[in-house]
Amino acid sequence: MITLSSDFGTPYPAAMKGVLCQHSDARLVDVAHDFPRQDVRATAFWLREVLPYFPPAVHLVVVDPGVGTDRAAIAVRAGNHALVGPDNGVLLPVARELGDPDGVEMFEIEHEDADSSTFHGRDVFAPAAARIHERGVDSLEELPDIGPTDEFEDLRFPESEVGESQATGELLVVDDFGNAITNVPGDFLADADEIEVSVGEAGNGGLAPVEPSYAHVESDQRLVTVGSHGNVELAVNRGRGDDAFGVSVGDEIRLEIEK
Amino acid sequence: MITLSSDFGTPYPAAMKGVLCQHSDARLVDVAHDFPRQDVRATAFWLREVLPYFPPAVHLVVVDPGVGTDRAAIAVRAGNHALVGPDNGVLLPVARELGDPDGVEMFEIEHEDADSSTFHGRDVFAPAAARIHERGVDSLEELPDIGPTDEFEDLRFPESEVGESQATGELLVVDDFGNAITNVPGDFLADADEIEVSVGEAGNGGLAPVEPSYAHVESDQRLVTVGSHGNVELAVNRGRGDDAFGVSVGDEIRLEIEK
Amino acid sequence: MITLSSDFGTPYPAAMKGVLCQHSDARLVDVAHDFPRQDVRATAFWLREVLPYFPPAVHLVVVDPGVGTDRAAIAVRAGNHALVGPDNGVLLPVARELGDPDGVEMFEIEHEDADSSTFHGRDVFAPAAARIHERGVDSLEELPDIGPTDEFEDLRFPESEVGESQATGELLVVDDFGNAITNVPGDFLADADEIEVSVGEAGNGGLAPVEPSYAHVESDQRLVTVGSHGNVELAVNRGRGDDAFGVSVGDEIRLEIEK
Repeated sequence: MITLSSDFGTPYPAAMKGVLCQHSDARLVDVAHDFPRQDVRATAFWLREVLPYFPPAVHLVVVDPGVGTDRAAIAVRAGNHALVGPDNGVLLPVARELGDPDGVEMFEIEHEDADSSTFHGRDVFAPAAARIHERGVDSLEELPDIGPTDEFEDLRFPESEVGESQATGELLVVDDFGNAITNVPGDFLADADEIEVSVGEAGNGGLAPVEPSYAHVESDQRLVTVGSHGNVELAVNRGRGDDAFGVSVGDEIRLEIEK
Repeated sequence: MITLSSDFGTPYPAAMKGVLCQHSDARLVDVAHDFPRQDVRATAFWLREVLPYFPPAVHLVVVDPGVGTDRAAIAVRAGNHALVGPDNGVLLPVARELGDPDGVEMFEIEHEDADSSTFHGRDVFAPAAARIHERGVDSLEELPDIGPTDEFEDLRFPESEVGESQATGELLVVDDFGNAITNVPGDFLADADEIEVSVGEAGNGGLAPVEPSYAHVESDQRLVTVGSHGNVELAVNRGRGDDAFGVSVGDEIRLEIEK
Repeated sequence: MITLSSDFGTPYPAAMKGVLCQHSDARLVDVAHDFPRQDVRATAFWLREVLPYFPPAVHLVVVDPGVGTDRAAIAVRAGNHALVGPDNGVLLPVARELGDPDGVEMFEIEHEDADSSTFHGRDVFAPAAARIHERGVDSLEELPDIGPTDEFEDLRFPESEVGESQATGELLVVDDFGNAITNVPGDFLADADEIEVSVGEAGNGGLAPVEPSYAHVESDQRLVTVGSHGNVELAVNRGRGDDAFGVSVGDEIRLEIEK
């Protein structure tokens, strides 16, 4: 199985699929091709949430603002999975989730000058993903143009500070529904009934109930919940949490449990 | 074969695909993941139009505004097909189309508390769809956590009133092209050349020609036609019928054949 | 393998997939379903860029502003590929790329009145594509309702005029990123460092550096590059080239190399 992730919209991903089909009979599964454009961090977040649900696979990831510069092409072996993409950190958070969190196996993919210096997804990464799939994740280093490396861009999400009744974190991403996802672990909400939310310097936010899911409040009402990723999420039932709480990606979020 | 329908946008459907691939080698076919958000009625309409074109399959449907409340998870057996989703009526119109219109076989899916109370598509419905696919639609009741039920939410579209030269109906949905789809059967237009359209209390609409297809009128001109679903549709060639006729979903639509 | 291309958005393509699955076990690969609506020329451009990356396949293409009129349904054999769609020129540029550029084999598909005169993708083209796939591209003419034709709509992109230091062309399409793609071959830029761009009568444009890829200039800065299609492209790093150069599809583009 080969999964595909990019920020390409359409129709560019189809060229990658054509190349994959030329070199492999692997089942192809689209993860998403509308990741926030050239947003390495948001893509890294979503890959970490989604790819662990897949059986062993080769994951082709092309969110690549540095295409055509001298940034390397890399492969990562993580457990029974392999990841292929640009050396900008996008593969690392999910690799630590799929494999050994204390160390992942990194490889650099040597490549000739590509046909195009603007579309390495088609000309470099897709052929590499197909070859790794055909060779097998266990022996990817036997491919002639792939060698181990210990120089690579890393990416780690900021850690939140969590006390008994107070937590300080950051808004990591906003999903399609408008749910505003923080880096504060859901455990923090354990027995809370209400949370005082305070955002950045402006102090947007305010008091909101803690609920197990959206429909526990009326339509258009705010809530704080634990999202499917296990983190604290600021939401509105049938509405947008980011607007209602006045938050944007990167904002500092302070939470205080009201007793 | 397992089809997937949701209002999730991306990348949440990929997590469902990962779970399905963990439990089944079934061919996966996306129906749509941009159904109008949390709009059970519009989704039910589109499923009824689209799923009958598929060979026997398990259809996973997650448009679920009540996720995390006590609404049940259900499976429906309809002919050689099975449908899996939340108990909010979304599965019923298509089930009556695929199976016996006078009675469908309903089952409740028992489930432990899910990992997440906000993403039953991944944690409850996808595993159930995979297990039903592996067991076979004919014997889905042999699965340990599935039992027959006769308590479920139903959903029926309103019927139109059709006379010889007059019909009164409702605007059911608007498609991506802006075609405004009523519940009046296409037969009503049989020999008509022109139709007087009157919408709601405001009486928007006016006179429009009856044509076999869009390109039978000039660009930007209005027409009334029979859409691919067999219903009367208010349209504009290369434009939006909903805007041109001043109609919205739920509006009463009165049609009068001009002789 | 059968690929699918349309301007249908969702969920109409799913009905075509259902029909294909009824008649064939072929692997289905979506190229795109959000081609610019009813824009035959832009779709023809993208198909020519993308489909040559696929192994031999049947390509179902439904961008069909004339649906329901007397425009024919056609099939084209091009090398080991077949293309199926409406007779409006959309299949021709890619057919000449996949097969013999001096002549392609054209066939007309006879068909009964379709179930719907507004959805030939489902009722005419998808069944034809499935039958051609099952029969094999080599012997598609043995199908009872398919016969050779030499009457068809052609479509050719305008040629640019290229001198040593000056070129005059046309803006063909703008991609999702805002990259503005001309019909001037990339070779023209060979040793250029800077290009004076002049657009249409208004003369928008101005001086811009020639770079191998987007990230060779700062964010929000303009550049001229050779896109993945091999043509000269007006772009902005992490921004929209069409806006920054003031160009629209169809504009005349004059380029002059600054020495």
